[in-house]
Amino acid sequence: MRTRVTDMFGIEFPIFAFSHCRDVVAAVSRAGGMGVLGALYFTPEELEMELKWIDDHVDGRPYGVDVVMPASYAGADLGVDSPEDLVGRLQGMIPEGHRKFVDDLLAAHGVPPLSEEADAGKVLLGWTDATARPQVEVALKHPIALLANALGPPPADVVEMAHAKGVKVAALASTPRHAVKQVEVGVDVVVAQGTEAGGHTGEISTMVLIPQVVDAVEVPVLAAGGIGNGRQMAAGMALGAEGVWTGSIWLTVEEADTPEMARRRILEATSRDTVRSRSWTGKPARLLKNEWTDAWESAESPGTLPMPLQFMLVSDALRRIGRSDAAELATFPAGQIIGAMNQVKPAGDVVFGMVEEYVEAMERLSRLTEG
Amino acid sequence: MRTRVTDMFGIEFPIFAFSHCRDVVAAVSRAGGMGVLGALYFTPEELEMELKWIDDHVDGRPYGVDVVMPASYAGADLGVDSPEDLVGRLQGMIPEGHRKFVDDLLAAHGVPPLSEEADAGKVLLGWTDATARPQVEVALKHPIALLANALGPPPADVVEMAHAKGVKVAALASTPRHAVKQVEVGVDVVVAQGTEAGGHTGEISTMVLIPQVVDAVEVPVLAAGGIGNGRQMAAGMALGAEGVWTGSIWLTVEEADTPEMARRRILEATSRDTVRSRSWTGKPARLLKNEWTDAWESAESPGTLPMPLQFMLVSDALRRIGRSDAAELATFPAGQIIGAMNQVKPAGDVVFGMVEEYVEAMERLSRLTEG
Repeated sequence: MRTRVTDMFGIEFPIFAFSHCRDVVAAVSRAGGMGVLGALYFTPEELEMELKWIDDHVDGRPYGVDVVMPASYAGADLGVDSPEDLVGRLQGMIPEGHRKFVDDLLAAHGVPPLSEEADAGKVLLGWTDATARPQVEVALKHPIALLANALGPPPADVVEMAHAKGVKVAALASTPRHAVKQVEVGVDVVVAQGTEAGGHTGEISTMVLIPQVVDAVEVPVLAAGGIGNGRQMAAGMALGAEGVWTGSIWLTVEEADTPEMARRRILEATSRDTVRSRSWTGKPARLLKNEWTDAWESAESPGTLPMPLQFMLVSDALRRIGRSDAAELATFPAGQIIGAMNQVKPAGDVVFGMVEEYVEAMERLSRLTEG
Repeated sequence: MRTRVTDMFGIEFPIFAFSHCRDVVAAVSRAGGMGVLGALYFTPEELEMELKWIDDHVDGRPYGVDVVMPASYAGADLGVDSPEDLVGRLQGMIPEGHRKFVDDLLAAHGVPPLSEEADAGKVLLGWTDATARPQVEVALKHPIALLANALGPPPADVVEMAHAKGVKVAALASTPRHAVKQVEVGVDVVVAQGTEAGGHTGEISTMVLIPQVVDAVEVPVLAAGGIGNGRQMAAGMALGAEGVWTGSIWLTVEEADTPEMARRRILEATSRDTVRSRSWTGKPARLLKNEWTDAWESAESPGTLPMPLQFMLVSDALRRIGRSDAAELATFPAGQIIGAMNQVKPAGDVVFGMVEEYVEAMERLSRLTEG
């Protein structure tokens, strides 16, 4: 299979796999696709270790890193550069009523507090310029092929830094207007992501969005949102994309370090078990729908806070839930495709299975017009 | 192009066009697709006239009729058979607070009352067994090729009546479970409709839904939701569908009797200008998003009523708005595809353009795997 994207990166299949798990990233790249490591949860030091590991296990195949530099967030105008100072200033912006709502919700579900030794305080993540930029600096010291930005256009100087190292830049877009802005700052590949995708996502479906983005920009477009098998890959390509960007399907592969409770929920879920909610980060993200997401929509909800305050508010709570038996509150980013995920396979098999089904879909389509 | 669906109906292209406008239905069937008339707004007498007109203008090509027989609705258990008696009983179930909310909303926007001679009272439409069944009886006296049901599985005896006349039956499904139920009652074709579709719609996107439905049933599946051009048609077929079911794109064709205000709004809209809302009928339907849909989501909203009470509550209001200058309140069913609709063409040209683009998309895809 050959598109501008396979040529750009020297990959066999235009299948991009977003994952926070280094094992998945390396496995997909080795299988002929391209793994992209989500840097969000890592400190610069941790990211350095992860990328070093990937370098050692990717057999020289290309891989990418995904950071989150939102165009707008609370505190962006505080003029605070150090993450520690920024956290301090932002903590003061979280209303007491919101803290009480979270405490009461956890108490109602019998979720115990974190033990003394648990490391609380990793609350800001890579969701600000101050925290994402050091991640970018670490990433660009490694032989990465792609730097992707998950929330809108990356800062122009970051694009320049990447290009200076021969690294291509991608950005996720949920409207054609976003895509045009991204290309204006120099993005090489647009990931057009439909509302059915997991994590931060817009309102327009993949089916409707892809042709609009393809028509709006000259650079190659990857189709994202609802892509989990070869028929969906073929559909994305039929819409005009030159490759696909996938995420949720890697949560249940053998290599994934997904917590057991989450893995089980995904394998059991239907495609109606997700919801677009601001309850994770303050920006709309598709999450597993459960009593957590319901609570934030209820009459008692104080409403969500803007990014990054919402995650600062809920991060310890989510950690406490993850260590408790309150599975009914344990949410995480997940796309509608989880309804079709019901077995655990090695990542490489998922890549090859997708390609095989893609070829079958193409053959079937050819027969329709021969008849 | 040949699928089980083109064979079943003897049509040239597996393109189904849902429209409330007889001119569109006849034009699409004459162009080699299949027009399907939405019967909802017609009394049995009106429907008889519409179908007679289509019979005279369709040049012997097959066409269909779409009715709405919801599996559940308020008043279904009242045991009232006459539409008039049913309306009387149902009117008493609408709370005064709801009537006041609607009156206040219209007053705030300066919408005048209906004039004396305007025919108020067409409030029930074909949304109950009592009102849809006479439509079915009228439809089956005409040489229709397809009877479609828009809200869930049709009653088993209706399927039998249709089959006895050699008429195929289709039903819209928004989950794989719905599709299985429909096939159990004898449906011949499942229309798998994604959340991006206009009108009554579920939560799962077309990209995610179609393969799940195709895998769940043996009968042919049509892809619906977000299908407006040939690339989207190709995507639907790549997902496993054997044809496409389209709706919103016919609102702006030359032949359509769409009110001028609505046509203008559609041509200007982006794909973010729709919303799934219960404010039209009480069941979630994708509508043009505006001050009407916003009002029902506001803090002042009394909440919506179950079908058919909500439409009984709002039907005169929507008619008043339609005759006023309050364009900001004028809503109607519309899918996300309206963001891509920006010119007015004859219906036949839309059919041929879609087929042409489909063929181009197929050729482009073939080249990708040759490379």
